[in-house]
Amino acid sequence: MKLYDLELSGNCYKVRLFASLINAPLDTVPVDYLQGEHKGETLLKLNPWGEIPILEDGNVVLRDGQAILVYLANKYGGEAWWPSEAHLQADVMQWLSVAANEIQHGPNTSRLIEKFGVESDLALSLARSTQILTLINNHLADKDWLAVNRPTIADCAVYPYISIAHEGGVSVDEYTHIQAWMKRLEQLPGYISMPGN
Amino acid sequence: MKLYDLELSGNCYKVRLFASLINAPLDTVPVDYLQGEHKGETLLKLNPWGEIPILEDGNVVLRDGQAILVYLANKYGGEAWWPSEAHLQADVMQWLSVAANEIQHGPNTSRLIEKFGVESDLALSLARSTQILTLINNHLADKDWLAVNRPTIADCAVYPYISIAHEGGVSVDEYTHIQAWMKRLEQLPGYISMPGN
Repeated sequence: MKLYDLELSGNCYKVRLFASLINAPLDTVPVDYLQGEHKGETLLKLNPWGEIPILEDGNVVLRDGQAILVYLANKYGGEAWWPSEAHLQADVMQWLSVAANEIQHGPNTSRLIEKFGVESDLALSLARSTQILTLINNHLADKDWLAVNRPTIADCAVYPYISIAHEGGVSVDEYTHIQAWMKRLEQLPGYISMPGN
Repeated sequence: MKLYDLELSGNCYKVRLFASLINAPLDTVPVDYLQGEHKGETLLKLNPWGEIPILEDGNVVLRDGQAILVYLANKYGGEAWWPSEAHLQADVMQWLSVAANEIQHGPNTSRLIEKFGVESDLALSLARSTQILTLINNHLADKDWLAVNRPTIADCAVYPYISIAHEGGVSVDEYTHIQAWMKRLEQLPGYISMPGN
């Protein structure tokens, strides 16, 4: 199983992190992002979006961090990480949407602007970051994990860009419930870090 | 099963549409959006995000259109609409992320600005609309449906804001494969429309 990977990408890291937590076999193939390899002919054939991560597992080719988490969970992680019961799976799914929407356009975008010079609206992404971090912090006030009372792919999808939010000028220091949740996640067996967190 | 609903919301419509396609029992409760009922005490208790749709099914309360589709598919729609096999489910999941990310911040945002006077970056949302519509149109050049060769919740999640994109100044006329796909979806038994599409 091959992951087209960038060490500094939180979306790639979420795949590496989850694979490590469930001990799934994963070979990482570093992509030369600065040289635009992800927009080159070979990788565009695998993912017309021109983005990484891309997962290749035999004939299966997948883009999108959340979709790859679902794949790995179904294939290797099992019920614990991605419950099959309707209301439990939907609970986790709510957070996969948060990862694709509010985290992507909040802390992730702020970091793209501040760390990588991507042109976008910093004020907007900072406001979105405050909004989503406040919601998540409140949500975690009486919970250990984002969904279904145990660690799931919801946590793996949402954690990465929060753990490196400071690189986009977003401080997480004051969100005490988020801090405690991150510490819990970082103590899971198999946890691995990425540069910056 | 109760849907807190707004007739003009594409995210609410995707729930109504899918419920109709699979013949799931659904009572709609109109929310007075203009009066800010979704930001009022009662609905904020159900969804701290201050957004609709919200689905209430006994003790189960769910926010986020994509999560609600997953719930309905697991409970009523079955394997046809939300396959359980790892690579097939991940294929559909890729498109749930597209709905939460690129569609939300492309055609949906353009429409919010143009139709409802929401303040955001119109040039950015129009550029994102062009980008995602081009990708989807190319994807559909040799396919009838977005994922796994049959209608799934992927189509239900992505279709709504494309079908009303013109209300945000985004023309879909030139995307012939998208046009054909929309026509196929509109011919499914149980299809219902929303104002504007």
